[in-house]
Amino acid sequence: MSIESSTANIEYEQQLTELTRTWHKTIPVSEFMQIAPVVFDGESLVVSAPLSPNINLHNTMFAGSIYTLATLTGWGMVWLQQSLAKVEGDIVLADGKIRYLAPIDANPVAKTEWQDVDLSVLKRGKRVRIPLMVELWCGDKKCAIFEGRFISLPTSKV
Amino acid sequence: MSIESSTANIEYEQQLTELTRTWHKTIPVSEFMQIAPVVFDGESLVVSAPLSPNINLHNTMFAGSIYTLATLTGWGMVWLQQSLAKVEGDIVLADGKIRYLAPIDANPVAKTEWQDVDLSVLKRGKRVRIPLMVELWCGDKKCAIFEGRFISLPTSKV
Repeated sequence: MSIESSTANIEYEQQLTELTRTWHKTIPVSEFMQIAPVVFDGESLVVSAPLSPNINLHNTMFAGSIYTLATLTGWGMVWLQQSLAKVEGDIVLADGKIRYLAPIDANPVAKTEWQDVDLSVLKRGKRVRIPLMVELWCGDKKCAIFEGRFISLPTSKV
Repeated sequence: MSIESSTANIEYEQQLTELTRTWHKTIPVSEFMQIAPVVFDGESLVVSAPLSPNINLHNTMFAGSIYTLATLTGWGMVWLQQSLAKVEGDIVLADGKIRYLAPIDANPVAKTEWQDVDLSVLKRGKRVRIPLMVELWCGDKKCAIFEGRFISLPTSKV
C-alpha cells in the first residue's frame, strides 16, 4: 500500500471499519470469503479477499467468488458514498454481468471508481440507479470485468 | 420431491454423490453455502442451498450467493453430461449475466435444462462451448435468471 493510500484510509477509517463490520455481520458468505476493503480515497475503492477460501478445483479463484467480490465492491462503494453524503438508502443489485479474462492464481484486488451520481434525491423519497464497473486485478493482470446496476431505495422510517 | 424425481435420482445416485463431493471438497465456498443437487433425470438438473448461510442484510438471499448457486448449477449440468457421455473436460465459465427479479426469502431452487451440445469432440482434443440458462425459483415465484457461457477444455494427459 502506498503512503498516499494509507493517508487516504486514515481519513475514512471509521467508515471502512463500519463497512467491514456490516459485511461480515450481515452477509455470512462475505466473512467466510474474508472480503475486506483495502483502500478508499473518497473516489476510488479497492477491495480484496485471500485466495485460499475462494479456490476452485483448478486451484485458481472460483468464478462465484470473483463475482461476489466484484458485487460487494460495487455495493461497498454506494454504501460509502451514502455515508459521505449523509443519506440513507437500501442498496440492492438489479442485474450484473461479468467477463472472465484470465485465471486468478494469487490474491486478487477489485477496483471501482465513483461515477458522481446524485444521491441527495434519496432524501426526497426517490430511488437512485447507480451503474458501476468493477475490475478484478491479479498483480498487473486484469482478470475480470464486472458491470452492475445498483439501485438504492429510500428507507421508510416510522 | 415427486416419485418420478426420486426414481430418477436413484439411477444417477452415484454421479450426484460424486458431484456433491467434488463441489464441497474443491470449492470451499460451495460447502459453506451448503449447495447440493436435488433432482437430476438426465436432461434437467435442480440444485438447492439453504437460506441461512446465504442471507444478506435484508434477510433475503445475498446476490452473490444467488449467482454462485446458478453458476454451480450450470457447471454441475456440464459435469453430469460429461460423466454420462464418458468424456473428460475442464469446465470453466467464460462469462455470466444475471437479472434479479424478486427477493428470495425462503430456500431457493436453481433449475437448468440440457441443450444437447455434442461433447464427443472433447475426445478429439477440441474445446466445447456450452451456453446455459439457469432459473432461480422460490416456491412458485421466479426470482432470478442467469445466462452463462461455459467452455469445456480437453484434458491433456501424460
